[in-house]
Amino acid sequence: MNEQQLRDLMQQVRDGAVGVDAALDRLRHLPFEDLGFAKIDHHRALRQGMPEIVFGLGKTPEQIATIAGKLLEHAQNILITRANEQVAALVRRSAPDAEYFPLSGAIRVWRDRTLRAKGKIAVVCAGTSDIPVAEEAQVTAEVMGNEVDPIHDVGVAGIHRLMQNRQRLTEAKVIVVCAGMEGALPSAVGGLVACPVIAVPTSVGYGASFNGLAALLGMLNSCASNVSVVNIDNGFGGGFVASLINRA
Amino acid sequence: MNEQQLRDLMQQVRDGAVGVDAALDRLRHLPFEDLGFAKIDHHRALRQGMPEIVFGLGKTPEQIATIAGKLLEHAQNILITRANEQVAALVRRSAPDAEYFPLSGAIRVWRDRTLRAKGKIAVVCAGTSDIPVAEEAQVTAEVMGNEVDPIHDVGVAGIHRLMQNRQRLTEAKVIVVCAGMEGALPSAVGGLVACPVIAVPTSVGYGASFNGLAALLGMLNSCASNVSVVNIDNGFGGGFVASLINRA
Amino acid sequence: MNEQQLRDLMQQVRDGAVGVDAALDRLRHLPFEDLGFAKIDHHRALRQGMPEIVFGLGKTPEQIATIAGKLLEHAQNILITRANEQVAALVRRSAPDAEYFPLSGAIRVWRDRTLRAKGKIAVVCAGTSDIPVAEEAQVTAEVMGNEVDPIHDVGVAGIHRLMQNRQRLTEAKVIVVCAGMEGALPSAVGGLVACPVIAVPTSVGYGASFNGLAALLGMLNSCASNVSVVNIDNGFGGGFVASLINRA
Amino acid sequence: MNEQQLRDLMQQVRDGAVGVDAALDRLRHLPFEDLGFAKIDHHRALRQGMPEIVFGLGKTPEQIATIAGKLLEHAQNILITRANEQVAALVRRSAPDAEYFPLSGAIRVWRDRTLRAKGKIAVVCAGTSDIPVAEEAQVTAEVMGNEVDPIHDVGVAGIHRLMQNRQRLTEAKVIVVCAGMEGALPSAVGGLVACPVIAVPTSVGYGASFNGLAALLGMLNSCASNVSVVNIDNGFGGGFVASLINRA
Amino acid sequence: MNEQQLRDLMQQVRDGAVGVDAALDRLRHLPFEDLGFAKIDHHRALRQGMPEIVFGLGKTPEQIATIAGKLLEHAQNILITRANEQVAALVRRSAPDAEYFPLSGAIRVWRDRTLRAKGKIAVVCAGTSDIPVAEEAQVTAEVMGNEVDPIHDVGVAGIHRLMQNRQRLTEAKVIVVCAGMEGALPSAVGGLVACPVIAVPTSVGYGASFNGLAALLGMLNSCASNVSVVNIDNGFGGGFVASLINRA
Amino acid sequence: MNEQQLRDLMQQVRDGAVGVDAALDRLRHLPFEDLGFAKIDHHRALRQGMPEIVFGLGKTPEQIATIAGKLLEHAQNILITRANEQVAALVRRSAPDAEYFPLSGAIRVWRDRTLRAKGKIAVVCAGTSDIPVAEEAQVTAEVMGNEVDPIHDVGVAGIHRLMQNRQRLTEAKVIVVCAGMEGALPSAVGGLVACPVIAVPTSVGYGASFNGLAALLGMLNSCASNVSVVNIDNGFGGGFVASLINRA
Amino acid sequence: MNEQQLRDLMQQVRDGAVGVDAALDRLRHLPFEDLGFAKIDHHRALRQGMPEIVFGLGKTPEQIATIAGKLLEHAQNILITRANEQVAALVRRSAPDAEYFPLSGAIRVWRDRTLRAKGKIAVVCAGTSDIPVAEEAQVTAEVMGNEVDPIHDVGVAGIHRLMQNRQRLTEAKVIVVCAGMEGALPSAVGGLVACPVIAVPTSVGYGASFNGLAALLGMLNSCASNVSVVNIDNGFGGGFVASLINRA
Amino acid sequence: MNEQQLRDLMQQVRDGAVGVDAALDRLRHLPFEDLGFAKIDHHRALRQGMPEIVFGLGKTPEQIATIAGKLLEHAQNILITRANEQVAALVRRSAPDAEYFPLSGAIRVWRDRTLRAKGKIAVVCAGTSDIPVAEEAQVTAEVMGNEVDPIHDVGVAGIHRLMQNRQRLTEAKVIVVCAGMEGALPSAVGGLVACPVIAVPTSVGYGASFNGLAALLGMLNSCASNVSVVNIDNGFGGGFVASLINRA
Repeated sequence: MNEQQLRDLMQQVRDGAVGVDAALDRLRHLPFEDLGFAKIDHHRALRQGMPEIVFGLGKTPEQIATIAGKLLEHAQNILITRANEQVAALVRRSAPDAEYFPLSGAIRVWRDRTLRAKGKIAVVCAGTSDIPVAEEAQVTAEVMGNEVDPIHDVGVAGIHRLMQNRQRLTEAKVIVVCAGMEGALPSAVGGLVACPVIAVPTSVGYGASFNGLAALLGMLNSCASNVSVVNIDNGFGGGFVASLINRA
Repeated sequence: MNEQQLRDLMQQVRDGAVGVDAALDRLRHLPFEDLGFAKIDHHRALRQGMPEIVFGLGKTPEQIATIAGKLLEHAQNILITRANEQVAALVRRSAPDAEYFPLSGAIRVWRDRTLRAKGKIAVVCAGTSDIPVAEEAQVTAEVMGNEVDPIHDVGVAGIHRLMQNRQRLTEAKVIVVCAGMEGALPSAVGGLVACPVIAVPTSVGYGASFNGLAALLGMLNSCASNVSVVNIDNGFGGGFVASLINRA
Repeated sequence: MNEQQLRDLMQQVRDGAVGVDAALDRLRHLPFEDLGFAKIDHHRALRQGMPEIVFGLGKTPEQIATIAGKLLEHAQNILITRANEQVAALVRRSAPDAEYFPLSGAIRVWRDRTLRAKGKIAVVCAGTSDIPVAEEAQVTAEVMGNEVDPIHDVGVAGIHRLMQNRQRLTEAKVIVVCAGMEGALPSAVGGLVACPVIAVPTSVGYGASFNGLAALLGMLNSCASNVSVVNIDNGFGGGFVASLINRA
Repeated sequence: MNEQQLRDLMQQVRDGAVGVDAALDRLRHLPFEDLGFAKIDHHRALRQGMPEIVFGLGKTPEQIATIAGKLLEHAQNILITRANEQVAALVRRSAPDAEYFPLSGAIRVWRDRTLRAKGKIAVVCAGTSDIPVAEEAQVTAEVMGNEVDPIHDVGVAGIHRLMQNRQRLTEAKVIVVCAGMEGALPSAVGGLVACPVIAVPTSVGYGASFNGLAALLGMLNSCASNVSVVNIDNGFGGGFVASLINRA
Repeated sequence: MNEQQLRDLMQQVRDGAVGVDAALDRLRHLPFEDLGFAKIDHHRALRQGMPEIVFGLGKTPEQIATIAGKLLEHAQNILITRANEQVAALVRRSAPDAEYFPLSGAIRVWRDRTLRAKGKIAVVCAGTSDIPVAEEAQVTAEVMGNEVDPIHDVGVAGIHRLMQNRQRLTEAKVIVVCAGMEGALPSAVGGLVACPVIAVPTSVGYGASFNGLAALLGMLNSCASNVSVVNIDNGFGGGFVASLINRA
Repeated sequence: MNEQQLRDLMQQVRDGAVGVDAALDRLRHLPFEDLGFAKIDHHRALRQGMPEIVFGLGKTPEQIATIAGKLLEHAQNILITRANEQVAALVRRSAPDAEYFPLSGAIRVWRDRTLRAKGKIAVVCAGTSDIPVAEEAQVTAEVMGNEVDPIHDVGVAGIHRLMQNRQRLTEAKVIVVCAGMEGALPSAVGGLVACPVIAVPTSVGYGASFNGLAALLGMLNSCASNVSVVNIDNGFGGGFVASLINRA
Repeated sequence: MNEQQLRDLMQQVRDGAVGVDAALDRLRHLPFEDLGFAKIDHHRALRQGMPEIVFGLGKTPEQIATIAGKLLEHAQNILITRANEQVAALVRRSAPDAEYFPLSGAIRVWRDRTLRAKGKIAVVCAGTSDIPVAEEAQVTAEVMGNEVDPIHDVGVAGIHRLMQNRQRLTEAKVIVVCAGMEGALPSAVGGLVACPVIAVPTSVGYGASFNGLAALLGMLNSCASNVSVVNIDNGFGGGFVASLINRA
Repeated sequence: MNEQQLRDLMQQVRDGAVGVDAALDRLRHLPFEDLGFAKIDHHRALRQGMPEIVFGLGKTPEQIATIAGKLLEHAQNILITRANEQVAALVRRSAPDAEYFPLSGAIRVWRDRTLRAKGKIAVVCAGTSDIPVAEEAQVTAEVMGNEVDPIHDVGVAGIHRLMQNRQRLTEAKVIVVCAGMEGALPSAVGGLVACPVIAVPTSVGYGASFNGLAALLGMLNSCASNVSVVNIDNGFGGGFVASLINRA
């Protein structure tokens, strides 16, 4: 249901051609176009003022491409997470300007590049191996209209490198911190700044890291009070929440 | 080190009476008054622009009261968490206006009641048993200068009650959601609003709730992208992060 | 022991040629035909009034096909779970009418399509990625003689989509709800209806979903009292229990 | 809002004295009487056709008694779970006919004793130590209008005792099985009958029973397909689900 | 060091040609022939009166074959666990009579087939998928000189099949029971017999079986007192312990 | 049903006064005397040739005393586990010769002291804090007719103490080893002897011992093949299994 | 067996009055004086060159006092861990100079105060609540002959406080770091120094700290390579290992 | 920045050509050469007096080779962990003398072979399957300037093999012990020696070893006080900590 259809409906209501109840009913039912395997909710973008998001995990390349194609009829900006080269190729058939980010598997169609927030989001990561998650956070935050300052490889075992970036950290309005292993970086960053810190545990590590559990527990128990946490490897979630805060 | 002392020092630097290094050194060392068992950092309040916080857990009543007494020489507002009646009595000797909240064990000295944020924070809880955690969040958010709208007893098993409060939810700039058992409420709330949601799992439940683990995992896996999570029963953390967002 | 043998035995009992105890004894021992690797219990179908079930997990394609072939000598309806294309090809040699469901890996021979229950079973799932589990539940419930109403993609983050299907939910006599991630959907559905809800956690999710553990714990701690739970990804179990309830 | 009020409202709607929207609005808002700490939903009883339930866990005796008193203005039957002697005394002030069950801590006001189901519910438990949980299931099923057949102390280590009760088991329309330790009883019972079995793991056991976790996992992995599971020690849930099935 | 060498040494001691300390020293050092990656202890066979065992897990095919070759210079019977076709081919070069068991991956050289125990060992398994583990137990018990009675596919969900084998169970002197999923079979068997039962949890199952954890916990919490437990999928351990008991 | 009743019944069968079926029926039903809360199975002693066991955990003192009193009408030897002083006092009213073991909480009536096994059982423990569990094993093994050799305080950190007891260990026909913390003692003992070793993990330890989980996992993964394991703190189980092996 | 006895024995060997074997035998057996419930090994002090340690956990006050009394006949320095006021009173009867440390429950008899190491041990803790564990480490290190520099309350959320103590940290030859919650402090300290860091997780925290599990996992996954870890709350272990390193 | 550059800078400072602040600034910024994906810190080698370490896990072969190439411009010795054949080939292009260790995946450039410690490090492992982890520890300790004594295949189930190596163990100044399964070896070794023992749990084992968790817990709960622990399979960490101790 595009804007023109919406205006038409409202005029019919004003004119009495359609009753209020019928109008409500149509509004309620129209936005769901049934693709057989997934209901697409175009209202979601309006409701949350955001680009369309397609979670790639557990969907076939064909399902993803079909959903993306449908969304592109209405949406300017689309973000697909956890996809791959093959999906990117399929998407580029309908959107040749789609970017593909191989480290994180993200695909982005980014046509409306308006900045929607005054502040800056710093996306910090502890080590080289955490970059894929940080990239997902950055790609997300950018497509949601934010300026992003990426600060990589500043883990707590070399605390002076973190200290050297203190200025950039204090200039951010909200910070996303991605770290695996012991997950200590959000606590250290959180103690240096006064803004909200979104901690993203990564599954980087081995042995008793238990695929990110150690980092997750560490972040949940942070002694810095300005830290809240999203799921393991959920760079998207980190970038999404940070964007909402930056707009707030 | 109060403001006057700071000004004096700066003048001495300007006049050459104190060298830059010596000044730096004094600034670095002065703010820590050693109480023997804890270093109090008066700078923290400046750095984060917040009231003083004393975490009561694992400290003796005497330790808490001594720290609080010291802080009250400088601070307008103090929040003590996880305390009890006995601590409250000790604190009231130096601060007769201290409030005590028996459900959550919080103690609050709230002298500077300036509102420091434009928006409103909704503090939502699922059931009666979650109220102590919600109370801790509310007490925290208020003493940090926020207007709080408490919405209790709107768990997902009676989804219509949640729907009836939809208006109040959409008016909030940030929402704290406290829930135990399956911890589903943040997902439901997150789907209804476009603002950030801070989820606080509570240890309410029995059997396979494993003292809040079920709720914690549920919230970390929320299908609503605007949800981030703090520690189990950490109402303080929920209120603190929400306050930072509300000021942002 | 085929039907002719059974009739012969009964006549011998009537004629006094075989005593009651001896007849009981033979009945007790005969039904197990030893295939070398598995004992097939033809009585089971009689005892529980159900089609034959073959659990494919951990069996070789040849074992499955042999068991299925043996069962087809007696049974009208057969359901094979967790199989694959290769098994389907083998089974079709003896049963060309066998259906294969690639998402769930189920194979079904469905010759007796009598409806054996008055009510309807709704099979609900939260997201596209949960469909394989929901399909297993639906295939099971159908072959057991039930009418099934599938309702897909109604997760709690878009609660209005769930609300739009309220009518269909209330028309069901029992509901199977499949959901991964935080597993909140059974609680929401359970609060909307008065009938039993069978919750099936799925392993959909990542990070702290721990392969379905988060959803499992969430469902076990559901604040809706009409919810009971089966194993992770156990769509078959969900459909089976629902069928028994629908017949009750 | 009692029945008379409801009838008055409907007549006003019929007479045009109240518009449909206003009527809807009143219906929507009336049933919640705000007690300050909990919203009581009198509609719930209508919606689910059940007695009122008060979950005692995590509520103070005074809170429970206040809620119960309020409910008794409208409800015939009330069940309070996880209460104690002290709560029973408070409740008896307004309901002298309240029963108290010390093993499970249940309190029951049972005035309307109509049987609402044709079948019988068997409540089975493995050992003497599981009786408190079985009692909670029985008390629940009775107050919901069911005939209950309790079968105690038939654990799998003495399988002949279970076999001796086979007749009673097959006469039930649904069976609740409470067991701790290895939680094997539901599988054994499930294999003997064709009806649904609701398994209730109990925290009975020591060491590696991990407070009921072993029994819970055992039941979730039951090789009997007619078993579904509720939370550890959740006798109420077992009785509740069984009642819904028995009415179905 | 073979028997002749041992006799020579003892004679030298008797004759005074070698001092007691020197003899002790040689005895202590000789049996370890250093292969570079593993020390082979020929004494082990004497000390425990058993065939040689090679644990294949985590060793390369070449390492296994080298160790086996070395052992075959002294040993009549050898059992290699967790190997594969390729290892079997390598071993057959030096021992053409080596048997290979593809389900369990065991390889056996069985030249001395003396029965070393009076009783019989029953090896019981719950389902077809548990047969690989049961096979490992049987192969082990046989090569250690025991008569084995295999009883397959008698899981608790069809308790009558277990009852039909009661006679064979009571004739065993010790019983190995292999079961996955809920792991209830050892309890049921244990309640029917008076002899020791060695329970072997298998990783058969899915979802909340957590790769055998559910079965393991169930068996550790068995209400039958004659049950002890070995590691998940450890058919070898079950057969080994049973053999020791059968010889006792 | 005492012996006289049994003889009467057999004579009636011989005389034709009671049919075989009727006799079977009476035998089947008589032994269960219903005490209201527990079914006592006098046959169990016959079936397993063992003294009567009462598991005290989760039963009230009165329940235990009533069961014990009933059993004493038939049984010579009784063992009550996990009881206390108060239960001991109640039991002594009907059995003044009952022994009470305060470390383990065991109560024993030991009238028939016939040795029923040829070998000796060694009960080994690692440290002073493990003695309560070792005591339960010893008390159990003794009342079941075994000679017991207790060997205390020989943990692996002082391996020479274990070595000094090597002679006593090799003289045992079966060994029970109780250890907490890392639970390494069964492996060390198992490597020194050729007989079966029953490992009993204890909850002794702190921090990451997780109430005996560390010891339990250690024992299940023992590199000594002659080790099988019972539940945490289950000294009774260890003594029971060892007794069966010693009789075998 | 004191030094004089040892010298006497050696002279008897030299003089031929005692054979070598007999001497070995006496050496092997003498040091264990059997107190009935624990074997005391006076050799341990010689073997490891350390004071005597009594682990109080799980022992009765009387057992501890008896062991301590026995040890004091030979030892200059004794450390008792996890004791209490009552034990301290009992110990002071035989050793009036015994110190009692109420935070950690340690009791120390410290007569030989020789410094046995050249370097200094820093004992660092994150917060006031970690002091009991740090105290246990300090008391241990001191009684083992080390100079200790305690540095308290320098958690990572206030990283500048840690930086201010950098000089003291670099002066230490080995550092013990005690921290609860997220356990990040060892990583931060480890990155600042080049010496070994012994990390002691504490059970300080709540919710998802799971009694120190979060801190333990964090420390095991430290990105600083110079960190090794001991058990949760094991201040003694931290001090002990640090002492060995400082002597090395 | 090499030593000459550093000397030049210092002279410029002495001569007044560069101000103190400017010098500090250059020192602070120079050592980080930005490679785009990782910040290389040449100072680290100076700060900790160690060769350069590259953690291969989670980095692409190209990233590793680039980092290694950059480091080789300054460093004599380099250790790359968790790499493979392909990385080794890439590294050999710039360093033809690079060694590759296929069991552990380590790559080593070892040009400066100065011994930097007086003592010897024993690297002990329990079984053949633990050798890859022991190799990583040995390779690390050697490149850090230590003499290493490898002692393989001395697991606790054959305690006499451990005893035979007692002499070599007591000659070491620090011992690294690698063991999987029950992880008991560090306790046994720790009880035999007086020096620090670094325990490295390995993921060797199956079933309830849970990928090294059993060994890890066992080592953390060691009854030998001289044991500290590093992460599962972290041979590098074991060798690194041991090297620091050996230099201390």
